[in-house]
Amino acid sequence: MEKMKKFIKKLIQSNSPMLLPSYSGIPTFMRTPFYNDLTNLDIALVGVPFDGGTTNRPGSRHGPREIRNQSSLTGLQNHQSKIIPFQNCRIGDIGDVPFSNPHNLETSIKDIEVFYNNITKANVVPITAGGDHSISYPILKALGKNKPVGLIHIDAHCDTASKIDGSKLQHGSPFRNAVETGVLDPKRTIQIGIRGPHEHLWEFSYQSGMRVIHIEEFYEMGLKAVIKEARNIVGDDPTYISFDIDGLDPAYAPGTGTPEIGGLTSFEGQQIIRGLRGLNLIGGDIVEVSPPFDPSGCTALVGANLMFEMLCVISDSLAT
Amino acid sequence: MEKMKKFIKKLIQSNSPMLLPSYSGIPTFMRTPFYNDLTNLDIALVGVPFDGGTTNRPGSRHGPREIRNQSSLTGLQNHQSKIIPFQNCRIGDIGDVPFSNPHNLETSIKDIEVFYNNITKANVVPITAGGDHSISYPILKALGKNKPVGLIHIDAHCDTASKIDGSKLQHGSPFRNAVETGVLDPKRTIQIGIRGPHEHLWEFSYQSGMRVIHIEEFYEMGLKAVIKEARNIVGDDPTYISFDIDGLDPAYAPGTGTPEIGGLTSFEGQQIIRGLRGLNLIGGDIVEVSPPFDPSGCTALVGANLMFEMLCVISDSLAT
Amino acid sequence: MEKMKKFIKKLIQSNSPMLLPSYSGIPTFMRTPFYNDLTNLDIALVGVPFDGGTTNRPGSRHGPREIRNQSSLTGLQNHQSKIIPFQNCRIGDIGDVPFSNPHNLETSIKDIEVFYNNITKANVVPITAGGDHSISYPILKALGKNKPVGLIHIDAHCDTASKIDGSKLQHGSPFRNAVETGVLDPKRTIQIGIRGPHEHLWEFSYQSGMRVIHIEEFYEMGLKAVIKEARNIVGDDPTYISFDIDGLDPAYAPGTGTPEIGGLTSFEGQQIIRGLRGLNLIGGDIVEVSPPFDPSGCTALVGANLMFEMLCVISDSLAT
Amino acid sequence: MEKMKKFIKKLIQSNSPMLLPSYSGIPTFMRTPFYNDLTNLDIALVGVPFDGGTTNRPGSRHGPREIRNQSSLTGLQNHQSKIIPFQNCRIGDIGDVPFSNPHNLETSIKDIEVFYNNITKANVVPITAGGDHSISYPILKALGKNKPVGLIHIDAHCDTASKIDGSKLQHGSPFRNAVETGVLDPKRTIQIGIRGPHEHLWEFSYQSGMRVIHIEEFYEMGLKAVIKEARNIVGDDPTYISFDIDGLDPAYAPGTGTPEIGGLTSFEGQQIIRGLRGLNLIGGDIVEVSPPFDPSGCTALVGANLMFEMLCVISDSLAT
Amino acid sequence: MEKMKKFIKKLIQSNSPMLLPSYSGIPTFMRTPFYNDLTNLDIALVGVPFDGGTTNRPGSRHGPREIRNQSSLTGLQNHQSKIIPFQNCRIGDIGDVPFSNPHNLETSIKDIEVFYNNITKANVVPITAGGDHSISYPILKALGKNKPVGLIHIDAHCDTASKIDGSKLQHGSPFRNAVETGVLDPKRTIQIGIRGPHEHLWEFSYQSGMRVIHIEEFYEMGLKAVIKEARNIVGDDPTYISFDIDGLDPAYAPGTGTPEIGGLTSFEGQQIIRGLRGLNLIGGDIVEVSPPFDPSGCTALVGANLMFEMLCVISDSLAT
Amino acid sequence: MEKMKKFIKKLIQSNSPMLLPSYSGIPTFMRTPFYNDLTNLDIALVGVPFDGGTTNRPGSRHGPREIRNQSSLTGLQNHQSKIIPFQNCRIGDIGDVPFSNPHNLETSIKDIEVFYNNITKANVVPITAGGDHSISYPILKALGKNKPVGLIHIDAHCDTASKIDGSKLQHGSPFRNAVETGVLDPKRTIQIGIRGPHEHLWEFSYQSGMRVIHIEEFYEMGLKAVIKEARNIVGDDPTYISFDIDGLDPAYAPGTGTPEIGGLTSFEGQQIIRGLRGLNLIGGDIVEVSPPFDPSGCTALVGANLMFEMLCVISDSLAT
Repeated sequence: MEKMKKFIKKLIQSNSPMLLPSYSGIPTFMRTPFYNDLTNLDIALVGVPFDGGTTNRPGSRHGPREIRNQSSLTGLQNHQSKIIPFQNCRIGDIGDVPFSNPHNLETSIKDIEVFYNNITKANVVPITAGGDHSISYPILKALGKNKPVGLIHIDAHCDTASKIDGSKLQHGSPFRNAVETGVLDPKRTIQIGIRGPHEHLWEFSYQSGMRVIHIEEFYEMGLKAVIKEARNIVGDDPTYISFDIDGLDPAYAPGTGTPEIGGLTSFEGQQIIRGLRGLNLIGGDIVEVSPPFDPSGCTALVGANLMFEMLCVISDSLAT
Repeated sequence: MEKMKKFIKKLIQSNSPMLLPSYSGIPTFMRTPFYNDLTNLDIALVGVPFDGGTTNRPGSRHGPREIRNQSSLTGLQNHQSKIIPFQNCRIGDIGDVPFSNPHNLETSIKDIEVFYNNITKANVVPITAGGDHSISYPILKALGKNKPVGLIHIDAHCDTASKIDGSKLQHGSPFRNAVETGVLDPKRTIQIGIRGPHEHLWEFSYQSGMRVIHIEEFYEMGLKAVIKEARNIVGDDPTYISFDIDGLDPAYAPGTGTPEIGGLTSFEGQQIIRGLRGLNLIGGDIVEVSPPFDPSGCTALVGANLMFEMLCVISDSLAT
Repeated sequence: MEKMKKFIKKLIQSNSPMLLPSYSGIPTFMRTPFYNDLTNLDIALVGVPFDGGTTNRPGSRHGPREIRNQSSLTGLQNHQSKIIPFQNCRIGDIGDVPFSNPHNLETSIKDIEVFYNNITKANVVPITAGGDHSISYPILKALGKNKPVGLIHIDAHCDTASKIDGSKLQHGSPFRNAVETGVLDPKRTIQIGIRGPHEHLWEFSYQSGMRVIHIEEFYEMGLKAVIKEARNIVGDDPTYISFDIDGLDPAYAPGTGTPEIGGLTSFEGQQIIRGLRGLNLIGGDIVEVSPPFDPSGCTALVGANLMFEMLCVISDSLAT
Repeated sequence: MEKMKKFIKKLIQSNSPMLLPSYSGIPTFMRTPFYNDLTNLDIALVGVPFDGGTTNRPGSRHGPREIRNQSSLTGLQNHQSKIIPFQNCRIGDIGDVPFSNPHNLETSIKDIEVFYNNITKANVVPITAGGDHSISYPILKALGKNKPVGLIHIDAHCDTASKIDGSKLQHGSPFRNAVETGVLDPKRTIQIGIRGPHEHLWEFSYQSGMRVIHIEEFYEMGLKAVIKEARNIVGDDPTYISFDIDGLDPAYAPGTGTPEIGGLTSFEGQQIIRGLRGLNLIGGDIVEVSPPFDPSGCTALVGANLMFEMLCVISDSLAT
Repeated sequence: MEKMKKFIKKLIQSNSPMLLPSYSGIPTFMRTPFYNDLTNLDIALVGVPFDGGTTNRPGSRHGPREIRNQSSLTGLQNHQSKIIPFQNCRIGDIGDVPFSNPHNLETSIKDIEVFYNNITKANVVPITAGGDHSISYPILKALGKNKPVGLIHIDAHCDTASKIDGSKLQHGSPFRNAVETGVLDPKRTIQIGIRGPHEHLWEFSYQSGMRVIHIEEFYEMGLKAVIKEARNIVGDDPTYISFDIDGLDPAYAPGTGTPEIGGLTSFEGQQIIRGLRGLNLIGGDIVEVSPPFDPSGCTALVGANLMFEMLCVISDSLAT
Repeated sequence: MEKMKKFIKKLIQSNSPMLLPSYSGIPTFMRTPFYNDLTNLDIALVGVPFDGGTTNRPGSRHGPREIRNQSSLTGLQNHQSKIIPFQNCRIGDIGDVPFSNPHNLETSIKDIEVFYNNITKANVVPITAGGDHSISYPILKALGKNKPVGLIHIDAHCDTASKIDGSKLQHGSPFRNAVETGVLDPKRTIQIGIRGPHEHLWEFSYQSGMRVIHIEEFYEMGLKAVIKEARNIVGDDPTYISFDIDGLDPAYAPGTGTPEIGGLTSFEGQQIIRGLRGLNLIGGDIVEVSPPFDPSGCTALVGANLMFEMLCVISDSLAT
């Protein structure tokens, strides 16, 4: 409590927009300061407004804008873990990845990689709001350049297809691409919440040695056992979190491109991320929020909150 | 996996619309072929665009159209059971039941019966998208003509009222009508998910010997015990599945005529149907999806997925 | 069953609007009679169309109107407890609290207090549809005037802040205000479902001795244990129920001003209220339903149903 | 102005709900008093929550409820004509027509006729909110019982079909039915705003001598000439107004069952009704508002305002 | 009238789905028959579910599906011109253009061209529902292969940019591309309804000699004069119609990618197309309907109706 | 054209976010730079997220956020007037007015006045996005401090009431308050588009000598005559523009607190503002955009565009 009071005093002194009513002010991510460069940052909040890899319903290009908007409703401290991320680290919104030609999937994937290479070069940890899931591949290329990383992946789909609709870079293949490029370690990869009638596309997950936890197994094992297994699999080495909002049930997150019924609750999503505290976390993303399919705006709200959860455990990682 | 690969090869060779992106092509149910006659079919997917039996909010006449639309997002194989229905059986969309006068409840119920009599005469198994629940009565008249059938009924309401608003054929009475006509065996009937303040209407369920599992008992017993009891009750004889979308909680299925809070999740709905594998299943329906009350479209998506689940267990029944 | 049949016969004889189709007639709360005075009432259903205390998204001024509208879909008897509230007690809709100046938070809080003083003076028990949570303070002032009351409070937020945005009367502070005014007994107060990143605002809950059950503890303990503890804490003395709709997860209740993900289900909300049967209940409120943020209307439907649950246990309290 | 001040003073003295904020209070039509009998009324505002005659998209059974709701946003005095209807006449909401069996089109049409016979017997003038257009036939049967009435009919469709979908009483035929029953004088009938690809259904309009003004002719002639012709056609004898909300363009009124693009604006709709001042007006209806297809609620708002316009000219008729 | 009666008799005899209620049956365009080949067709209705050229808000890939859906509400005969297109010509729905890789703008544009080359080779006239405006370029390549065509183009934007966001093939450049490829004659091109703050992008329109009618000039000239000028400019040679739904005001067509306020009404849009009767029309398209941004569905309804208007004048062209 | 090319070159060189795709980047107003102080500005774009003066439907506190969001779809140059505001002047977003206690109408009005006093002191011209109309009073207090200003006011309501609901500062009285405080010259005030049944509230407009143009007179006179009269009335002295979005018809702007049918089109709104070019314009506001009542987002889009129109004529005023 004392820590928190001190922190708020600091915010008041600096006249921080974080203290404004939620509907007021310019919506950067969680109303953190906007930065044009990376010099004074530990963690960069990044938007990747790109949905050129979407195979079904588009619109996740609007994800970063709307997650920023809804993120004004998030807060300062995690009530369960007591983590105050903004006290742990220097955190800022560095805007959106620019695209030379958003109509071109190949160059766009390259543009993302270049952008994240700059982030890693600056020793800054990125937390990203997508965009469709194709963006995780170039992010992993930047983060795993020197050594393949581990992955905790919450999703309805394994996203390890070979080709879909004639393309290898679309949003159904990022983690296969990452393994084949040598930036992701499949043995240190766990995929949680998998379901839906596309199982035949995910052969590579099994062949490469990823641990796949279908939603049925998730409920058989229980939340705690799943978290424990996730921690065991990724171990102490650098690990990335990728959270596809369609891992949640459409009741909780209707605004997405490929909804699959029978999924996780928001509570379970939060608990999984909180359960990763203490791991060696090097970044995370929340993807596939598609505001045009989200009449109540709650999907972006969930996205913003999950981004906040990532921020908590990652900032804690960095601080300790 | 091999079976699936072969199946997809076949789809590619036949240039099947099932392989198109989900937003493309004419929306038949699951993009199966449209058939004008029943000669070459094992299972017929049928629409009954009728809501003349609705006592509260109308709109389920638009159910078949929108379930067809959303069914493009379903797929080829059940990820849990590994069933590939389209390989098991010859499956097609035979369009909608035509009505001589949709403003007349009596003749419409008759029109439905006639239509399903033709289906059963052709030895084809119908899986239906309604429409309000009044349509289950004429369907059962066709299916149980020779011998009363068993019933697994998921719903918030027992639908065994005597009269509502002056009518006996409206959507609150189909199963009483079916028992009284001798086409439904109440002793082989189980009703799951029942709740809401209309209990006084369902006296007939108890008097006739149906097994009623209220939502509270459902959670006390647990999913597996409920499935086990359902299997025991219907036994090995011919059994019909009727799934009223309002059996689910409005968080999962807001687009319906008589929403009752405190209901099942989509996951539980899927599990119940999957749990029926191996029974002697002779047809099923998913009813009461009302698109005008469904701003995100997710209710029709749930409806389409539950229809796919029925297709899996029923096609498996037929194949074995 | 017999009791119910008698009751319905009575409704038919009196030509009660409660028997009309749900879409028909003037929407008073549950289509109970409208009363201009309190003389012949045991329980008064009251609307408080006021959102001048909202710190985030407004709109709960429209709550009473829309809860009245959706309450036509509720019914006559609780299917689990078999309680028929309208048989237990004389129940009516007494309209909305009038405001001398709805733009003035201070005088509005006063207007509410005056209105509820009249209700308590008439020995009538109020069940209220808000409005934002600021309205619970003046209600408690009326109800706890002679002796501090106990409180069962379901919410995502403790609402025991000191000041927010320069004001002490807004919707984040009612229960601190009530304790400080001596109308609420913090030792007989339990707060259930608490979560979200505003923990630093709720210090007063702990200091004053309230029992705070965060959502995580709720799931650790289980529903039954929570109910048991709630009953123990409030004991046999007069107790008020305050249900903030944001205690539920936004999947179940998106239409609210400060949604917090990771919350209760509607089923859990219902069970908590049903679990209070037999306590010494002196009133209740359902607050923070904001229809403009509720495209499907389901939040108001949930609100209407929870109001019905309160009516059941409170009418039972009065009848026994 | 003086008249208005006096009127408001009276409202204040009687503590009229008309002075409450628009979101407050029980939504009767324009918050006029609710009456159980007709004794003290000049004009009765009536709801007919019936859509059993709808051939396309249903939902107008919810029209009266939602028009009542939105009518709180209308006011006391017409700014153009200066008419204060509530000062001219005794006006009240008499609730909704009750139906013995809303699933039966024939008996429902009969129920309506009986209800309006009582109104005319009491010498009260009805202004009605539908419901689909099938309801105008039984209303005209009551109003034209002694002598066929004249009609000013604003609509996209002539509604003079013989049979549609096997039925003669559905919402596409009321005015043919009325002529054939001898309660409507086709020579004193004008139909304004007609358009859309169903022209072949309206042969009877031409054969019986109705004046049909297509939307193209409407814009050729201009608003004033159309009003003049309407006045000439109906003359000084008793005349009814029937306004189908789909006479307006879907931009102005999307919430309707059979929208036709290329229609009137709300302004033009208002002007037409205002232009009828001084005629011998004996009633009017606004039909086909279907709230489920009206996400913004504006269609019901337009409906409520047009009902207010009718109230102005009709009350003026009665007063002079 | 007689012609129409005969036509309907024919439809009844052939049991045509065109006579079903609007909510029933499989939604092909206007419920015309689905054809797998072009042999027996005069006019082909085509869907191009492609939005890979969209620079702002995506979603027009869902346009063909939803225009098909809403087209059930259109009809058989134009009420103003009396044209019955389905009697003039053999008309069918030939489904959607298939894409080898919808993530690749270049190959997709090529796929479209190939598809339309087959259509023109078969001497069939295409009427197309897009998709974004980038699709008009490959269509024109097929239609203008032998000789540059004339163009009547209704739009808020000239769509003659050089490059946007690094791409030349996106939806802001189709008509420049067409001129530069020699398939469109700029001197025989008129662009109607132009507005919005992107004027600097349209330099090519002026340089190449296109006639640009801004919305202000449109209202200065009046509808009839604009139609006359359009007819003069294109003359008697083969002419294509391209209607971007954003030519209409967002009040009439909110569901589009680049809405510009201050636009045409639906009525004006209809009148423009009707005014083209008698020209040498060789095809048309309606593009940029984006259902995810269209909560009421009216934009797709407008699109379907404008497609029907094109069908009327084009079928009349072919028949005479 | 050359001017524009130069301007774009400059934007490219400065890497301006104005050139990003519309869905990308942080949404300041029109993606102008955010400024913490006023030193280097000619025109300040300001948000006033306040709806504490709303008498009907709230939500305009969300107006600035959503207008900022939609303003990304506006552009660089007015296509009709050729004005490039960003070249004329130094323009920036200075964020939102902060409130010491947003629950207090009196202090909030004071907070606004203080904020605008700073703006005028710095010789900067403010263009404001509200917020409800109560905010225009304190803005005028700042702008008219030395000498009463003239006013061009587009609205459905005169907003010159004395008191409503017990308050004098709510959104129905700003212009009466301004006259009585001596900061607005009623003789140099014109109110355009007035309508609706609240005429009795606007007596002060007539008594004080304002020119009131009802919507009916607007259409009688025609757009050009109205503009001419507006110019005559305000003359060459300093003049303020206040545009209440409810001046437009709800078809164009449903998302507002007090919609009145029968209003202006967006085109007419644009033309009125463009017609003010050359006047001595000292600021403007666009108020009453309420996003929660705006499912398609088009009202905020209209608001953003009208703000751009004001920016054009005001920047032109300053530049010449």
